[in-house]
Amino acid sequence: MNLQEIQKETGIDALLVTDPYNMRYLSGFRGGEGILYLSGKRSVLITDSRYTEAARQESSFDVLEENQEHRRPELLQACLEQDGARTVGYEDQSLRCCEFDRFRAELPLVKEWIPLQGQIDQLRRIKTPEEQELLAKAEAIGDAAFAEILKILRPGMTELEAAAELEYQMKKNGASGLSFDTIIASGKNSSMPHAIPSVKKLERGDFITMDFGCMYEGYCSDMTRTVVLGKADEKQKEIYNTVLKAQKEALSVICEGMTGKEVDRVARDIIERAGYGKCFGHGLGHSVGLFIHEEPRLSPADNTVLEAGMAETVEPGIYVPGFGGVRIEDLVIITEDGCRNLTRSPKELIEL
Amino acid sequence: MNLQEIQKETGIDALLVTDPYNMRYLSGFRGGEGILYLSGKRSVLITDSRYTEAARQESSFDVLEENQEHRRPELLQACLEQDGARTVGYEDQSLRCCEFDRFRAELPLVKEWIPLQGQIDQLRRIKTPEEQELLAKAEAIGDAAFAEILKILRPGMTELEAAAELEYQMKKNGASGLSFDTIIASGKNSSMPHAIPSVKKLERGDFITMDFGCMYEGYCSDMTRTVVLGKADEKQKEIYNTVLKAQKEALSVICEGMTGKEVDRVARDIIERAGYGKCFGHGLGHSVGLFIHEEPRLSPADNTVLEAGMAETVEPGIYVPGFGGVRIEDLVIITEDGCRNLTRSPKELIEL
Repeated sequence: MNLQEIQKETGIDALLVTDPYNMRYLSGFRGGEGILYLSGKRSVLITDSRYTEAARQESSFDVLEENQEHRRPELLQACLEQDGARTVGYEDQSLRCCEFDRFRAELPLVKEWIPLQGQIDQLRRIKTPEEQELLAKAEAIGDAAFAEILKILRPGMTELEAAAELEYQMKKNGASGLSFDTIIASGKNSSMPHAIPSVKKLERGDFITMDFGCMYEGYCSDMTRTVVLGKADEKQKEIYNTVLKAQKEALSVICEGMTGKEVDRVARDIIERAGYGKCFGHGLGHSVGLFIHEEPRLSPADNTVLEAGMAETVEPGIYVPGFGGVRIEDLVIITEDGCRNLTRSPKELIEL
Repeated sequence: MNLQEIQKETGIDALLVTDPYNMRYLSGFRGGEGILYLSGKRSVLITDSRYTEAARQESSFDVLEENQEHRRPELLQACLEQDGARTVGYEDQSLRCCEFDRFRAELPLVKEWIPLQGQIDQLRRIKTPEEQELLAKAEAIGDAAFAEILKILRPGMTELEAAAELEYQMKKNGASGLSFDTIIASGKNSSMPHAIPSVKKLERGDFITMDFGCMYEGYCSDMTRTVVLGKADEKQKEIYNTVLKAQKEALSVICEGMTGKEVDRVARDIIERAGYGKCFGHGLGHSVGLFIHEEPRLSPADNTVLEAGMAETVEPGIYVPGFGGVRIEDLVIITEDGCRNLTRSPKELIEL
């Protein structure tokens, strides 16, 4: 499905794009603030003066500046009039209620508003070869940073300091930014899947779960490794090896034609059979692209059939409150007969 | 105005909070994902298993886990039933159209939906003494990082490398993260107010505009300084000194009782009289708190009367396409008779 097909199927004359990642995908504009107006006849990018010069450099769209004299509804009204557009598609998954209310009030030319329900996001699901290489490059930056952080982690360092070092290493290796807030969860904190790095000091015997990602040319990386600072005890080894087995098994089956639910089930079975079913509360994975959490997901709730060219994380975990937890995550590109794993960092238990 | 007053004035039985910063402000929960349900009788935080353990540590609200078996609308329906709530307030500035459509479809108990139109955000406008100290601490981290970056900037370094160093310095000085994507705009790139750091190398004679901020205990810092790498030419000095004069003048008049529009006018006058009126396209400033862009603003469009305890940036700029630009920004707390400037970094033109 492409834009023209969306317009044909929905019967819309024009569409408004407000999701920053869809704006970038369709126009090349990286600023993320503003709105796109697309009809069969014109492609317009409306943004403010903080971004107009950059927008003209980054995009071939007609760039219009919105300001106090020429507000957004007025500029859109002009486009609608010129095109005779009466049926307009909007991104109901992105547009806030108040903005939509304002559009309906200030754009009376529009007779019908059609919610696009993620159809533009869907254009981004299958990654082109160029996109796959950018994801690979981003993930390689994560791998390089991981190799460095292993030399740096030590007892007494705080989780915040470890996060700072990891992020610095990603940037020294070419990242333009982070794809999400780094998670460094040590000791008991590792029982919280999305723990926020704190002033807690790393201690001998701690699990240290590091979930981190960078941006490279707009594309996100995402990986997780859990290590032990010092020697792992038996329970830690048991939990670790269960997660590892679940992750490797999921990687061995994932391929075009399977559903996200089926792949999730393979990992979840292994974790449940080991008695930790209640300790794996999140889905197995999610898609990644310009945004860190895209569709489809690998989860009990997702029946989407996977296709070659999709990018998915595979990240099972076991989290035991009061004790700690493990997560192991790679980023892969689905292929016809399996997957291409973009994450090269070692996965056997590392005891630092 | 507080929550109880909002409920009384709007006649709502319960309100749903979806903005992540309002969620944090009201509940203490830092994860940002989920929803709050508040009525006179209960305070509920609904989030998923990635966050529930952390939520229970951070918040005194009743934490309910949403998952495949117990989805969000079902949990909300139970709260509405228990409270006999029929009129519900929602954050129209935060909630996406598709989520609101789903609520209306799946929560038939609700007879009337009242858009809150930013009333909860308004609770955050006047910063408590504790919040002011956290903003001061965050800004001090920015100052410390700026002092360090001046020793590091050199010709041949890329904008991306400079951004990495600045961010690293903020974290070494205690930042938990960044409040926004660092802007490093050098040479001609400095004519773009929100330029994205690139692989362009810093060169002798370049303006280097650095706009950066960190997070500290959830509160944002924001500051901008423009320096020259090497010797400034006459035009650079003229532009710089005009911006500096505008900024200092605005700082000298800002106080409780003035409107954002009036303060903006003071800076804008100076820039217009110097002939650069068309080169200052953005507003003079914005409020800062848990989020980097809060209300009210200092802009030709904002007639809000400033009150003591508000936090505002004061950041005029001049941007000349093809040449370069300057922005100088401090963060201040409004007081009865002026302001408390949280930014200590020097402002006279620095030639490195």
